[in-house]
Amino acid sequence: MIRKTNHIAIAVPDLDKAIAFYRDVLGITDITPPQDLQDHGVRVVFVETYNQRIELLYPLGNDSPIASFLNKNAQGGIHHICFETDNILQARDHLLAHNMRILGDGNPKIGAHGKPVLFLHPKDSLGCLIELEQV
Amino acid sequence: MIRKTNHIAIAVPDLDKAIAFYRDVLGITDITPPQDLQDHGVRVVFVETYNQRIELLYPLGNDSPIASFLNKNAQGGIHHICFETDNILQARDHLLAHNMRILGDGNPKIGAHGKPVLFLHPKDSLGCLIELEQV
Repeated sequence: MIRKTNHIAIAVPDLDKAIAFYRDVLGITDITPPQDLQDHGVRVVFVETYNQRIELLYPLGNDSPIASFLNKNAQGGIHHICFETDNILQARDHLLAHNMRILGDGNPKIGAHGKPVLFLHPKDSLGCLIELEQV
Repeated sequence: MIRKTNHIAIAVPDLDKAIAFYRDVLGITDITPPQDLQDHGVRVVFVETYNQRIELLYPLGNDSPIASFLNKNAQGGIHHICFETDNILQARDHLLAHNMRILGDGNPKIGAHGKPVLFLHPKDSLGCLIELEQV
């Protein structure tokens, strides 16, 4: 079902400091300008390594899903891993057949990148928040 | 300095359950047999997606660096990200020049995969534990 890792998402409490860290300290040059995704409550920056995209997430608004994570992890931390799937509805059915819980109402939503996504309940995936994105 | 992401490490409290999850639920078929690394206090399994290797870490012994993580995160969770560098000593000097703290005595060690590694202090990398490995 899964062939590729789409991105690793890292929640950060200070986006400028995070950009400076990945650019100047780690020396990664392929970094996008910040983009506000108001509907998803996040400001995002993509940091691209050769094989893997890293998504820096900064909260927009108090209802941001990232705000509660940062309340528990004030310095920031790795938030989730996103894997790619060809067909999100088939993936959903396959997950439900394995008694996995899907966050929200159980149906895919249009995610922050305009594509259908779903999140597994981390209690069903050994504590790791996992997103599936149809690509 | 960094071009490639080497692996994402996930600490798990139940290795058999984790293997079953990645194999049967996510349908990832390229999974190595468990390997005990006694000197590093971990049993490891590699789960390979097309572009990214995921390292499942299970603690061996009470002194395992993973045991304390699992004490705080009983269900498991994403433990660290490892990036590749060409030259670990140059990387160390570059990090120190940017006032980064390196865990341990500040010098690279031979890591779990037989190659020189170092870990940055997560307080200096926005809460994210980052490993550099010379590849």
